[in-house]
Amino acid sequence: MIKHPAFAIEEWGIHEIELHLDDLPQTESIFALSNGHIGLRGNLDEGEPHGLPGTYLNSVYELSPLPYAEAGYGYPESGQFIANVTNGKLIRLLVDDEPFDVRYGEIESHDRELDFRAGVLRRHVRWTSPAGQSIQVSSVRMVSFTQRAVAAICYEVEPIGAPARIVVQSELVANESLEASGGDPRAGKVLETSLECVDHQAKGTMGLMVHYTKVSGLHIGAAMDHQIRGPKEMTVEAESYPDVARVTIAARLKPGERLRIIKFFTYGWSSQRSRPALHDQVIAALSAARLTGWEGLLAEQRAYLDDFWRHANVEIEGDPEIQQAVRFALYHTLQAGARAERRPIPAKGLTGSGYDGHVFWDMDTFVLPVLTLTVPRAAADALRWRHSTLGKAKERAHQLGLKGAAFPWRTIAGEECSSYWPAGTAAFHVNADIAYAVVNYIGSTEDVAFEETVGLELLVETARLWRSLGYLDEIGQFRIDGVTGPDEYSAIADNNVYTNLMAKHNLYCAAEAIRRYPHVAQRLGVDDSEADSWHEASEKMFIPYDERLGVTPQAEAFTEHEVWDFASTPPDKYPLLLHFPYFDLYRKQVIKQADLVLAMQLCTDEFTLEQKARNFAYYEPLTVRDSSLSANTQAVIAAEVGQLELAYDYLAEAAFMDLKDLQHNTRNGLHIASLAGTWTALVAGFGGMRAHDGTISFAPQLPEAITHLTFHVTSRSRLIRVEVATTQATYYLLEGLPLKTWHHGDEIALSVGKAVTRPIFPVQAGPRPTQPPGCSPIPRREHRV
Amino acid sequence: MIKHPAFAIEEWGIHEIELHLDDLPQTESIFALSNGHIGLRGNLDEGEPHGLPGTYLNSVYELSPLPYAEAGYGYPESGQFIANVTNGKLIRLLVDDEPFDVRYGEIESHDRELDFRAGVLRRHVRWTSPAGQSIQVSSVRMVSFTQRAVAAICYEVEPIGAPARIVVQSELVANESLEASGGDPRAGKVLETSLECVDHQAKGTMGLMVHYTKVSGLHIGAAMDHQIRGPKEMTVEAESYPDVARVTIAARLKPGERLRIIKFFTYGWSSQRSRPALHDQVIAALSAARLTGWEGLLAEQRAYLDDFWRHANVEIEGDPEIQQAVRFALYHTLQAGARAERRPIPAKGLTGSGYDGHVFWDMDTFVLPVLTLTVPRAAADALRWRHSTLGKAKERAHQLGLKGAAFPWRTIAGEECSSYWPAGTAAFHVNADIAYAVVNYIGSTEDVAFEETVGLELLVETARLWRSLGYLDEIGQFRIDGVTGPDEYSAIADNNVYTNLMAKHNLYCAAEAIRRYPHVAQRLGVDDSEADSWHEASEKMFIPYDERLGVTPQAEAFTEHEVWDFASTPPDKYPLLLHFPYFDLYRKQVIKQADLVLAMQLCTDEFTLEQKARNFAYYEPLTVRDSSLSANTQAVIAAEVGQLELAYDYLAEAAFMDLKDLQHNTRNGLHIASLAGTWTALVAGFGGMRAHDGTISFAPQLPEAITHLTFHVTSRSRLIRVEVATTQATYYLLEGLPLKTWHHGDEIALSVGKAVTRPIFPVQAGPRPTQPPGCSPIPRREHRV
Repeated sequence: MIKHPAFAIEEWGIHEIELHLDDLPQTESIFALSNGHIGLRGNLDEGEPHGLPGTYLNSVYELSPLPYAEAGYGYPESGQFIANVTNGKLIRLLVDDEPFDVRYGEIESHDRELDFRAGVLRRHVRWTSPAGQSIQVSSVRMVSFTQRAVAAICYEVEPIGAPARIVVQSELVANESLEASGGDPRAGKVLETSLECVDHQAKGTMGLMVHYTKVSGLHIGAAMDHQIRGPKEMTVEAESYPDVARVTIAARLKPGERLRIIKFFTYGWSSQRSRPALHDQVIAALSAARLTGWEGLLAEQRAYLDDFWRHANVEIEGDPEIQQAVRFALYHTLQAGARAERRPIPAKGLTGSGYDGHVFWDMDTFVLPVLTLTVPRAAADALRWRHSTLGKAKERAHQLGLKGAAFPWRTIAGEECSSYWPAGTAAFHVNADIAYAVVNYIGSTEDVAFEETVGLELLVETARLWRSLGYLDEIGQFRIDGVTGPDEYSAIADNNVYTNLMAKHNLYCAAEAIRRYPHVAQRLGVDDSEADSWHEASEKMFIPYDERLGVTPQAEAFTEHEVWDFASTPPDKYPLLLHFPYFDLYRKQVIKQADLVLAMQLCTDEFTLEQKARNFAYYEPLTVRDSSLSANTQAVIAAEVGQLELAYDYLAEAAFMDLKDLQHNTRNGLHIASLAGTWTALVAGFGGMRAHDGTISFAPQLPEAITHLTFHVTSRSRLIRVEVATTQATYYLLEGLPLKTWHHGDEIALSVGKAVTRPIFPVQAGPRPTQPPGCSPIPRREHRV
Repeated sequence: MIKHPAFAIEEWGIHEIELHLDDLPQTESIFALSNGHIGLRGNLDEGEPHGLPGTYLNSVYELSPLPYAEAGYGYPESGQFIANVTNGKLIRLLVDDEPFDVRYGEIESHDRELDFRAGVLRRHVRWTSPAGQSIQVSSVRMVSFTQRAVAAICYEVEPIGAPARIVVQSELVANESLEASGGDPRAGKVLETSLECVDHQAKGTMGLMVHYTKVSGLHIGAAMDHQIRGPKEMTVEAESYPDVARVTIAARLKPGERLRIIKFFTYGWSSQRSRPALHDQVIAALSAARLTGWEGLLAEQRAYLDDFWRHANVEIEGDPEIQQAVRFALYHTLQAGARAERRPIPAKGLTGSGYDGHVFWDMDTFVLPVLTLTVPRAAADALRWRHSTLGKAKERAHQLGLKGAAFPWRTIAGEECSSYWPAGTAAFHVNADIAYAVVNYIGSTEDVAFEETVGLELLVETARLWRSLGYLDEIGQFRIDGVTGPDEYSAIADNNVYTNLMAKHNLYCAAEAIRRYPHVAQRLGVDDSEADSWHEASEKMFIPYDERLGVTPQAEAFTEHEVWDFASTPPDKYPLLLHFPYFDLYRKQVIKQADLVLAMQLCTDEFTLEQKARNFAYYEPLTVRDSSLSANTQAVIAAEVGQLELAYDYLAEAAFMDLKDLQHNTRNGLHIASLAGTWTALVAGFGGMRAHDGTISFAPQLPEAITHLTFHVTSRSRLIRVEVATTQATYYLLEGLPLKTWHHGDEIALSVGKAVTRPIFPVQAGPRPTQPPGCSPIPRREHRV
């Protein structure tokens, strides 16, 4: 938990006005910079103190055996773990022989600011050394959105009050020592030093290193160059060793004089390319960065973000803290996916080593819907990455005795890395989640080239999986037995409704789509009878229903199980998974995260509004939200069934997941899916937006405190702006051809220059559902500072 | 598979008339000697060649961490592994400078014989060395039933044709090197050398060593002494080192002269006693052995076994091979349990390191029923061992959030050692299995002292477990959700019928028994309302039933699952667990081992004969018997429903499990439960014997090939002899007060000296049930040599 009201409430940034060392592990995640390819944790320039040093390149991982005391067929034998690569952000400072270290001497002031429009992390420090020398240090750090391989820092230091001897050591450092994570399975595994140096050099203002990961055999290149402005009396030296390249600048500065160092550093990696090729690649990137220059990089960054915000901006009146949080959320969602480019978007983005740097279904279900409507190219790239791993997924399906493709529950490079199959391999819904993201992307973009080359094959191979995983029973139902749905406090259940509905959608969409592309059907070997079999499975999909209670059970028999003894579960026993055995969680009615409730969001047409309200009221008292993948979904359905204040509370939980460290593990990295979900809670929740198979509709309604909500979405190349007030909503088409949409079920026609305003009528809602004792979301008003 | 028709068919022994080195790993298990305390694999005297060297002391184990790539609450962190202790059976022989090794030179003859009445393993070899010197070696090896700490060997060697220089090295050897087991999870883990020497000495004809296990900290003492008879020209030397103590006898022998060495060796171990105490303990045992002498030990052994066979003998006419196999089975069942004395009876006895030397529910469910009716004191000892671990079981229950005691799925010393909870911790039925064994033992022995001090507490704490594990649902059924029954191809199912019926029995018996002992109730804190709650749970126990099919599902919804695609499963894909993922096995109708069928045996009154026939016919085509814990149960129910020839085939499978190595893993140790089950298949199958809560009844009927079957059981201190012929059965009471019993439901009164004969009428049976393709038992006639 972040203990201090740490951040000033600002519209376009996160501003920390005081340094709290206890919060450093968390703020390193919050102030992380990334473009989806390079990720730099918000470590202090001088490296220490730190929570967790972190420099990541998307998909650079090391392998380590997955141990089993009792082995089993099909268990993955090798795990992939995100590697902490060469740290290029390190700039050490010596002031009159004393190292600049915030743990010693006096900090006069310390502020850091992540700027969502400039795309930089700024830091200003005034510090007095133990010997009494005061200095001012400022740094501006960026990871370029426009030059994917490039990061840069502008570092300035000046003495205050008295002249000082200043030495700056700007470094590339490999194999930093990391701390172990303790017993929490959600933290990442810490691997021993694993980078082997194959090349290092330093000359003039430059340094370069090439390493490789010992087991996975990936080569990583890093290079740096510097532009230095300082007094005449100044020396510059360069040196290199296997794990350090260093450029040292020494100067004597008088008060009013300043040493300014621009550090460009670049990265490249490859599993294929040779050491010399990588060497050349990173110095070429340096050349490009130098050509653009620091100011040029800043300008490009601003332009890139201006364009992003034009498409994605959300404006809120009535709650400036949520305003800040949703922009923070969008900013980090962008950082995670912007330039991933056929690489995955991991659960933590590139902000920490939590969950070993793995990507899960979060990407497809929580992150891609946001990117699809704001930065569709990034969504397509992520799905292209899924497609690039199709060979591995088909191999996995074959190993499991199934047809089609079985995508991994957790991975970096495409191989299944989950060692606990009841909550890994058995969670087959990830395949339908990918298919859903594909259908959603194609519907929202009409990207026919993508559909033909990427989308269809994903749909076909996942449909094949479902057809072989389920079966038509003797009474003509298509059953999917013994699988695990989204809720990780249940496992290996028959006919999980989320899974069955998503599989139904997958099978249906695959059958429909393949008929439109006979030549693709032929290429993929799909004949009519196969497509018919998908249709049949889809139509006959078994969806259990509990007549006695009048609710949809999360899975068959779920509602017959004992309800968890919430009354006897004190607050310190949460998260339950750390205090109770899986066997007991699985066999009782207790829900970690939205499951049936998520089905009601994604498969909205499968339930009437009345059913949604009944189901929501049934599941709320069972849902403990020990996962960050829940509040945002509960916000959406709460809003839909008219529980607007509850939705508001859930929105706040999603929004503050990391800014207030609600799950106590922001230190391991940000919860990218919950951040993306913050946007969804607003836009699909209070905006009532549903994007489905190419159509987009809205049903806005606001909680009391929010007086205005404005958001933007891009659908089928149309940029739409929606302004919601308490009693009415106004729709604008900012770009693109005229478009049909819906306001609370009423069709409206949008065209550029013609705003459409419609009234919002108050909703009839039942009594506010309750949550398990101690599990209600913090009322939004109590969050407020 | 044992490839050769290896063993002569003899009534009272296993006689191998030719040495096949390929079969050595299996014959080492078959020729293993044990008294339940000491176990010696049937390794050749000279140690090499070998399959797996093995010397075991019951409950001497080493600890090793259980690794998890993804940890979870309540996972056991430390595993126990049976230790290969100091080998005292080693006697090396040098013939004119050449080591006696059956891989070199020429074997003129080689035979080994395990004698069930003498209780010894005999070996005779005639061998010609590569240099042409012929010798005759014979050895007789025993592990004493009467002197628990003592083993002994009589070793004789004489030259043939020409004089020879003979050197015999008789040793104690610690830390023998073992081989790794490959990927089969059923083989034991091979631990690195783990014994540390703390004492070694050798003097005269004696040697002694004390070691301890490095992590578990158990001290192990071993000592040897020799009585040597040979020619005048003979030297004896003794020496010792940390891992070897050696007595060397060198002699020059002429043809007709013989060197005869009697080796006594003794063992002791302790977690508490000091090194000097252990030292003294093993030399004291040596003194006792010397006092008794070799002939004395042989005589005691014979007397012990005469008494055993008087109570346990089975005679069969019509199938001498089964006759041999059932005595082999009884002999090894005795060896496993005879002198275990408050230590467990592991799945492999002390015949190998398979399953890491762990005890499972096999002991309580398959082994104890046999011992209860033949060697009841041994059954009581095993249950006293369970009782001695009650503290650990209560702690485990508490850790799991349950009341009462949760006994481990697999263990040596009482702690749960199963690292895979779906087939470990979730298999709660082990607790009801223990309770069932307790009730059965008390009923069969009227051992009131045991009931008061041991039995009741076991019943009470297991009843408490069930009451907290299940729950009364809204429609008044007592449900036990999310547990695993005996069938290991299903897991985490709701209301497994075996589990629910056994829990019902447990709850009922605990409630009934505790009312008879108010002072025990008070001591254990059981009040009326608690006992009432057990009664209520027992009465309201939910037993699912499939109305559509008219069969009892193995667990709720089981019969709605897809049937395994047996047609597409070729023979080389068995056992399925090595070729298919658990997730797929669990979700389909495929059964590894009798589950509902076992419930029909143990809870015989819960089913009508017609239901048994229907259920048996339903489950037979689904049961693949990838477990050795199945054929014997199927034999019993097959016989009951009149499928006598099928029962005969299953009997043969159980009987030949190890003698023909049917599961290809006899090398890791014998299947003690299947051996015990061989007796059960005969006595409860063709004898129709049911012992239940103090009464005993019979319903004999024979398959065509068996013309006569005679067996003995002891119930309530009465020794009963039953002689079954094809058309009639005769009952004798050999010892004890008059007794009431039943023949095919008709009450008969037995008293000493008064035989009762009753006719047997042919049974009406339906068509013979089928098994999955390739899974039918080998027809008995095809087994025959």
